[in-house]
Amino acid sequence: MGRCSLLLLLLASLTPGAASPVSPSLRAPSSLPWSTSFRSRPTITPKYSIRYIQQKVDHFGFNIDRTFKQRYLIADNYWKEDGGSILFYTGNEGDIIWFCNNTGFMWDIAEEMKAMLVFAEHRYYGESLPFGADSFSDSRHLNFLTTEQALADFAKLIKYLKRTIPGARNQPVIALGGSYGGMLAAWFRMKYPHLVVGALASSAPIWQFNDLVPCDVFMKIVTTDFSQSGPNCSESIRRSWDAINRLAKKGPGLRWLSEALHLCTPLTKLQDVQHLKDWIAETWVNLAMVDYPYESNFLQPLPAWPVKVVCQYFKYSNVPDTLMLRNIFQALNVYYNYSGQAKCLNVSETATSSLGVQGWSYQACTEMVMPTCSDGVDDMFEPHSWNMKEYSDDCFKQWGVRPRPSWIPTMYGGKNISSHTNIIFSNGELDPWSGGGVTKDITDTLLAIVIPNGAHHLDLRASNALDPVSVQLTRSLEVKYMKQWVTDFYEMGVVSFVLDSMTLNCAVNKE
Amino acid sequence: MGRCSLLLLLLASLTPGAASPVSPSLRAPSSLPWSTSFRSRPTITPKYSIRYIQQKVDHFGFNIDRTFKQRYLIADNYWKEDGGSILFYTGNEGDIIWFCNNTGFMWDIAEEMKAMLVFAEHRYYGESLPFGADSFSDSRHLNFLTTEQALADFAKLIKYLKRTIPGARNQPVIALGGSYGGMLAAWFRMKYPHLVVGALASSAPIWQFNDLVPCDVFMKIVTTDFSQSGPNCSESIRRSWDAINRLAKKGPGLRWLSEALHLCTPLTKLQDVQHLKDWIAETWVNLAMVDYPYESNFLQPLPAWPVKVVCQYFKYSNVPDTLMLRNIFQALNVYYNYSGQAKCLNVSETATSSLGVQGWSYQACTEMVMPTCSDGVDDMFEPHSWNMKEYSDDCFKQWGVRPRPSWIPTMYGGKNISSHTNIIFSNGELDPWSGGGVTKDITDTLLAIVIPNGAHHLDLRASNALDPVSVQLTRSLEVKYMKQWVTDFYEMGVVSFVLDSMTLNCAVNKE
Repeated sequence: MGRCSLLLLLLASLTPGAASPVSPSLRAPSSLPWSTSFRSRPTITPKYSIRYIQQKVDHFGFNIDRTFKQRYLIADNYWKEDGGSILFYTGNEGDIIWFCNNTGFMWDIAEEMKAMLVFAEHRYYGESLPFGADSFSDSRHLNFLTTEQALADFAKLIKYLKRTIPGARNQPVIALGGSYGGMLAAWFRMKYPHLVVGALASSAPIWQFNDLVPCDVFMKIVTTDFSQSGPNCSESIRRSWDAINRLAKKGPGLRWLSEALHLCTPLTKLQDVQHLKDWIAETWVNLAMVDYPYESNFLQPLPAWPVKVVCQYFKYSNVPDTLMLRNIFQALNVYYNYSGQAKCLNVSETATSSLGVQGWSYQACTEMVMPTCSDGVDDMFEPHSWNMKEYSDDCFKQWGVRPRPSWIPTMYGGKNISSHTNIIFSNGELDPWSGGGVTKDITDTLLAIVIPNGAHHLDLRASNALDPVSVQLTRSLEVKYMKQWVTDFYEMGVVSFVLDSMTLNCAVNKE
Repeated sequence: MGRCSLLLLLLASLTPGAASPVSPSLRAPSSLPWSTSFRSRPTITPKYSIRYIQQKVDHFGFNIDRTFKQRYLIADNYWKEDGGSILFYTGNEGDIIWFCNNTGFMWDIAEEMKAMLVFAEHRYYGESLPFGADSFSDSRHLNFLTTEQALADFAKLIKYLKRTIPGARNQPVIALGGSYGGMLAAWFRMKYPHLVVGALASSAPIWQFNDLVPCDVFMKIVTTDFSQSGPNCSESIRRSWDAINRLAKKGPGLRWLSEALHLCTPLTKLQDVQHLKDWIAETWVNLAMVDYPYESNFLQPLPAWPVKVVCQYFKYSNVPDTLMLRNIFQALNVYYNYSGQAKCLNVSETATSSLGVQGWSYQACTEMVMPTCSDGVDDMFEPHSWNMKEYSDDCFKQWGVRPRPSWIPTMYGGKNISSHTNIIFSNGELDPWSGGGVTKDITDTLLAIVIPNGAHHLDLRASNALDPVSVQLTRSLEVKYMKQWVTDFYEMGVVSFVLDSMTLNCAVNKE
């Protein structure tokens, strides 16, 4: 985790270099001797149409006039022309269908909001590839993968929908998004307030940039989650790194570790151990993010409150190294093999393949630089400082570009955002990204909601019988605010109309 | 004026093709047999330092990491660290020193505002050329000439100044600009409200795009100016086009016209006549823009109320064609030879060389598409419709790019800008660009001031004994609002400080 670049969502590859996808051939076919029960519950597949819009590859330059097909999903089952609204999901770093399926909140409130639902895929993810298979080939092809271009896509799409769908023209649009998509929703409202009346930015760490928050806040929250989920849990994990180090140094240590952890690809050299530890650390991080109160399948199929389940294996911190390793394996097993289908553990993957690893790795190496660090004292990880120079060099090696870490605050305002309006920032208290999120009201229209017992954008997920009351209240509040924006929009429309009529009358009277 | 692209400020080249600069060799050395008196008054040269900042050529992409030197001027004679402010001129399409010298208002109020003055040069103008002499060579080099890049330059410059000038960090910045620079000032406040507390956008036609205002509004205002400045004036000009056409068709017509108008380059073919008429029309347009109440030297050295002076030659509309032409010559002479130095009239130039003809021509062919048209009935020009297809083809021929006429409204909100705050839109009633400007308050912080008897951004010019009361009142009002923004900023700062202290105290008390 030396050059740690904690990436958003589950693309939390801790080293930029690690973000490269692993070829399937590396996945060894060895079989795991265990399995845990996986009670899958039937998911209701949302009904949407899949559509495409031609977008300029470069909205901010005229030399390249090439276009590409951006995918979006649309559902109008509950949409009402009269007094309705458009809920617009600002897609993030992955396949939009996967996000659509994991944003049940929008489906749950569609009827109440009389809403058309639109899910816009982010360029360079899913099917929306500006240069097809060549999109990630080099920095020249990747040059148009920025937040500004993505927001411009959203702007053009909204204008297109309003122009082409009868009855949509005079409807209020609300941006919604989670995680990186939450940042985009908030930034979209900031930069294009003429196109969206407000934004719901769920678990959006818009301040996890530069020095806006201390870099250690993220790992501290992960640690708190674990320490609250079982006795000695974080302490055991803190001690586990040395156990791994000690075992690795022994004669057959690498082989023993590889076997004890059922790794698909055995460790062969000492550097592999650092990669192994990064991967394990990333697993704990991911678990903290998706510590949902019910069985779920977001990054991985998981039991309810997975961190609690994992912590059962870390009850005793003072155990022999070999036992510690077996416990780690059991814990990893919860995350990587809840379905019981895994034959071995693959240290090159930590989350669903629906996320776009390459695209995010590039974004993390350009605009989306979110510093994290750990000290091993206030958190349960090995100490790692944030080294911008090293990070930048790694990025240059990988993508031929250098990050501009201060650009996002320059562009989107950092902490000085009080002149904007109508944004709800919701953050789950369990979510490590909440450390870089807005957790206090800024003004009476820039609102913060903190969800106790909530993990990463829990509020955007479908309603569930096991939801804590906190998230139920959060969703009610969110709907209340969104309805207010819609009401304000229509009232303003009426006022404009009345004013226009008055002007007209005055003009007529003058003649 | 067929493919009329009325360009901002004095770059009002009516055809995109005409915007190419003319080589000095074309300026024939023949001498004009007349001269008018030019009583120049001594101008106080403002005292500023000239500085440079390294800017990224491309703020919105990472593939090109090249930088260039942006020029800016800075003056801190009246700046006070305690309770002061920074007045930031968002440079437009020309040499920043020329704009600085023509923005006396900022110098006049510097002491009252305890202000540091900064004048930032717009990329691709003056000395701020991203690729030096190659900057205009082709669409690849011109690719970074956009409003978005220019605003990003301003943002980076402000952050740099705050970081590097002791005492500047916690000061409120106000954006000011006129004409295209006024648009940039307004857009800068809209897009970067965290960097400027407000904007004064003088004569900024932010609605002269797409179909936001009727395309004929511009020429109608020019016509009104002329008809109000002398009897039969606009009517004579309306008739003059046919007089030129009739004369051109006669045997020695072209030679006669060339001699009667003392053209540096004689007309040789019938197409030249259209170009001649475009140039004359542009001259009337420019005169309307700079119809200042005192002798001035902005686009050209001119007498007070130059349109009135010109209209003296158009008292009689029903005169023989040859007399009409002599009158046109006398009128042109007011504009092109008030100094008495001109040896002939050059139909390839209409304004000062301080403006960047090439850069603006490219901008008009990409983002800055501002439709104008005339019908010859409600205005004094020959009828010309707005033909987007033809305009686009001409742009493609000239620059290899096609304009995107709906982009500016998509990006900057068109008429839906009511969610923004703290922008003053001032417009002179005589200014043809006021037709595309904001001339009615939108909210109580988006304010419009209309200046009767005011031409193009008269309010930004230095105070003058001959100023009409209207512009004096305008300036007082502008200062009042700007001071209010400054006060609000400092009060907000105090509130933030108190709140921070309270948080700190609470935290301390908890321990």
